[in-house]
Amino acid sequence: MIILLDMDGVLADFEQGFVRGWTARFPEHPPLDPRDRRHFSIRDDYPTHQGAMVQAVYHAEGFFRDLAPMPGALDAARALADLGHDVRICTSPLRHYRHCVPEKYEWIDAHLGPEFVNRMIVTRDKTLVRGDVLVDDNPDITGAQVPAWRHVVFDQPYNQQVAGPRMTWATWRDVIADAAPR
Amino acid sequence: MIILLDMDGVLADFEQGFVRGWTARFPEHPPLDPRDRRHFSIRDDYPTHQGAMVQAVYHAEGFFRDLAPMPGALDAARALADLGHDVRICTSPLRHYRHCVPEKYEWIDAHLGPEFVNRMIVTRDKTLVRGDVLVDDNPDITGAQVPAWRHVVFDQPYNQQVAGPRMTWATWRDVIADAAPR
Repeated sequence: MIILLDMDGVLADFEQGFVRGWTARFPEHPPLDPRDRRHFSIRDDYPTHQGAMVQAVYHAEGFFRDLAPMPGALDAARALADLGHDVRICTSPLRHYRHCVPEKYEWIDAHLGPEFVNRMIVTRDKTLVRGDVLVDDNPDITGAQVPAWRHVVFDQPYNQQVAGPRMTWATWRDVIADAAPR
Repeated sequence: MIILLDMDGVLADFEQGFVRGWTARFPEHPPLDPRDRRHFSIRDDYPTHQGAMVQAVYHAEGFFRDLAPMPGALDAARALADLGHDVRICTSPLRHYRHCVPEKYEWIDAHLGPEFVNRMIVTRDKTLVRGDVLVDDNPDITGAQVPAWRHVVFDQPYNQQVAGPRMTWATWRDVIADAAPR
């Protein structure tokens, strides 16, 4: 199978990185507990008047580069490839691309190596990418086309409302096997 | 139609940029005339012992940012969108991604604006991208899948051996119309 893996919230721990960046920058304002996140876009979980503060955290140089891997994610990505799947990294950059885009490349290079850098597909419209499965924490992936892939929802507090196959890096073996094309 | 436009050698004038970069860096060595290019990879058109010099030109900071647009390319890209086509920029970065990747974003931003930045698909395997037409100067585009798009070859000295529909920014209206899905 062609398995497309999203980065933020799936391979890379955006939530903990955000809490760390927010706390360093705004120590007088407690960050939202990641378990209390309810919207896919983190800006929608903070008060409107803090929107610029939220953006300042993830627009900062080094934010994406310094995200920690999600526990188990790197081993699972390598294991999927070892099982013979065609694993691709399928990620949507911020519109504010300056740091985000090159740091996504640096992150994959540092954590998974050049063979996976070669497998990156960077696009804001994932419906234009061919694949059998897309593992993504975004509950509502839209674009120009009806997707060709099956969406496996990567379990996060902010996507609990979505039905359909869900996985974590503890359950991926069973979920991916079940997601095989029928 | 979904029309995928390659960057180097299609929207951006890689050849003139290379000659300029080479001449600035190695004034004592005359560059190859772009009309005498015969291989898609420019390294293959220079003697083996100059391979590192060739790479030094296009690995340099600013090389991709400073490429001039191909004459007519920007107007044609906007005109394709105005005709109602879903125009996407589909580009393969160098393995040496550090300057190449962010500068490709800067280039599209500077020359076509944020709406086209939003339409970028950056991948080393274009066969995984869905589309009706791919306009690309690479005569031999391979990858994991049989392409879904029809390849329209963008006319360059180094791809004269390929049959099939060819275009330039002087002939695109007729060629693209003929390339519509049957």
